[in-house]
Amino acid sequence: MRKINVIEDIKEIRRRRPLIHHIMNFVVMTDAANATLAIGASPIMAHAIEELEDLVLVADGIYINIGTLDNIWVNSMIKLALLAEKYNKPLLLDPVGAGATKLRTEVSKKILETGAVKILKGNAGEMLSLAGLGEKVKGVDSLAETGYEAVSILAEKYNVVAVATGKIDYVSDGDEIAAVEGGSELFKYTTGTGCMLGSVMASFMAVNKDHMNAAIEGSAVFKKAGEIAEKRSGDNPGTFRIELINALYNIDKYNLTDLRIRFLK
Amino acid sequence: MRKINVIEDIKEIRRRRPLIHHIMNFVVMTDAANATLAIGASPIMAHAIEELEDLVLVADGIYINIGTLDNIWVNSMIKLALLAEKYNKPLLLDPVGAGATKLRTEVSKKILETGAVKILKGNAGEMLSLAGLGEKVKGVDSLAETGYEAVSILAEKYNVVAVATGKIDYVSDGDEIAAVEGGSELFKYTTGTGCMLGSVMASFMAVNKDHMNAAIEGSAVFKKAGEIAEKRSGDNPGTFRIELINALYNIDKYNLTDLRIRFLK
Amino acid sequence: MRKINVIEDIKEIRRRRPLIHHIMNFVVMTDAANATLAIGASPIMAHAIEELEDLVLVADGIYINIGTLDNIWVNSMIKLALLAEKYNKPLLLDPVGAGATKLRTEVSKKILETGAVKILKGNAGEMLSLAGLGEKVKGVDSLAETGYEAVSILAEKYNVVAVATGKIDYVSDGDEIAAVEGGSELFKYTTGTGCMLGSVMASFMAVNKDHMNAAIEGSAVFKKAGEIAEKRSGDNPGTFRIELINALYNIDKYNLTDLRIRFLK
Repeated sequence: MRKINVIEDIKEIRRRRPLIHHIMNFVVMTDAANATLAIGASPIMAHAIEELEDLVLVADGIYINIGTLDNIWVNSMIKLALLAEKYNKPLLLDPVGAGATKLRTEVSKKILETGAVKILKGNAGEMLSLAGLGEKVKGVDSLAETGYEAVSILAEKYNVVAVATGKIDYVSDGDEIAAVEGGSELFKYTTGTGCMLGSVMASFMAVNKDHMNAAIEGSAVFKKAGEIAEKRSGDNPGTFRIELINALYNIDKYNLTDLRIRFLK
Repeated sequence: MRKINVIEDIKEIRRRRPLIHHIMNFVVMTDAANATLAIGASPIMAHAIEELEDLVLVADGIYINIGTLDNIWVNSMIKLALLAEKYNKPLLLDPVGAGATKLRTEVSKKILETGAVKILKGNAGEMLSLAGLGEKVKGVDSLAETGYEAVSILAEKYNVVAVATGKIDYVSDGDEIAAVEGGSELFKYTTGTGCMLGSVMASFMAVNKDHMNAAIEGSAVFKKAGEIAEKRSGDNPGTFRIELINALYNIDKYNLTDLRIRFLK
Repeated sequence: MRKINVIEDIKEIRRRRPLIHHIMNFVVMTDAANATLAIGASPIMAHAIEELEDLVLVADGIYINIGTLDNIWVNSMIKLALLAEKYNKPLLLDPVGAGATKLRTEVSKKILETGAVKILKGNAGEMLSLAGLGEKVKGVDSLAETGYEAVSILAEKYNVVAVATGKIDYVSDGDEIAAVEGGSELFKYTTGTGCMLGSVMASFMAVNKDHMNAAIEGSAVFKKAGEIAEKRSGDNPGTFRIELINALYNIDKYNLTDLRIRFLK
């Protein structure tokens, strides 16, 4: 039986303060940086191709999010993935909008084909698209009912831990599948919560070499933070966005023994 | 007499959840995405020229804001306007800083000349500049006393609904002119409130083909949200920014029968 | 003895509402714009090389922050510095990440070599790197113990007012050295507080030609705002970020006679 120790890994993040190198979309850069700081890690956002190697060398984890890409940024994403592979730094990819445009699907696949990606995390629609399950994806905020089918296929195809987010997050390494429940309806009314989850998950990935565990922990902690934030903000998404950062920062003060993680396989 | 039904159109936005494709400035991307979500629509921010057509095909409304432009982004803006025209998708243009630099004035005119723009919304200074009324514009936060003169000229010249924002927003389709009052002094102390208004207005535009009505509704709802937010935040612009999102999200719970819309012509 | 009149200069900012032209990093654009508005100045963010001259002509202060640079942006930064020099507009440079990558160190030096920089403000690690003191810089959020040594060297070398931020901010014009204490531990858990300080300091620089005073005032006011914000937000960095803007906006309502400014030399 897989043993997950969320509290230990939160302590480890706060002890080591791992540097997470982001290529992040423009929309969520501020909130992703603040989420990274709140969980206890240290963010840097940089995309200039000339400095990527300097930064990969000191990074503890790398997170590529394709949310607002163009040619210049795509070149940097590919280069960053190759450097992650070269220097054996764990990489999390968020294929925002894969399936919604050909460009995004292709760029996601190119990054996956470098072999550097350790965790591939998208919403159910994006993951179903990448898995070739032909789900139609409407925009980047769509939430398909289930990403259950997609994660096994993608985990095996690309040798990654695959995470499909939604009401339930499904996490698979190709052998096992975990389902993580919780979170808040207000995630849908706050831009970039999925992207912020990526920052949190990359922070766990940077301190836990068992990437299946890291992905499950990131997902469970973020859903828990969402529940706490919802309670503190009522039906107010503006306030929720602030309380989500507060909750991540203070997450160790809450009961973390009731995280809703189930293994389906 | 023009019949405006704000409540019905808010319901319609929330029922249809229209996809609003933004080319937005870097400063306000997060807040504009959150404002779009709060009113009930679905935002996407994308500028890569290669994916614009894929996105226009599924978009219900398009919003170009030139707030932080450069060559690469200008090419995408022009291309996006041409695609909006080709596929008959309604386009709202916010000519941020027109009059402040030659580049911004020229880019605004180029986008207008595509014929795709249905709503042209700027602050009074920007609109006076585009109308050739030689107002000097100081930065992007300037608020001239009145954009009354500008809107008729621009509506007729470019066959658009023209909106000049300020203490009073003036809206004209060339025939009628509406004045919308309300809002908050804190709009001036919160970056990008004009840009966020653009997102809200584009959401109304996406569900109401009478673009004069959509513009008036967006303006009136945003001013109302500003009043609510001010009451809830005291003289605190940081809090105001959060409460503005809360107010947009909960706008249907407030009395919307007292919106201050007058027809001047 | 140097006479510092913070209250007078805050009034002056609010009376003149100086236009601060930013080339700012993507991560902090929103918060920096809001900090500029909160202290009473008027921000513009623009990087297109074609419009820089138009904007420099009307700007009262210029702020270059290299936090998320690439080739296109670097060209604009150099051009903007040359224009600042040409039109004698005061320039504040924040060399984010200098020392962390060769690119950032080189770009910082190139901008310094234009002779346009009046205030050079970085965290202690960045300043030690630029001063050739070989401090290893870990990411952009690192805080070395002291920047005391760096500021005199840099002030003399580049004929600037040099500011090394940290628990204590050190400010030097080459002759004197001031130490400014205060602030909040939550600065470290909120992305871009150093960058926001830059916006506030540039606002003082725009109204006070004694740039040593302007730098000290910006530093002291920002630290005071941090203390106020911390009191109002508890141990909550999400709330802190909002309260920091509230505090800057309302700073004149607080006691500003207890700012902790000491002259060491």
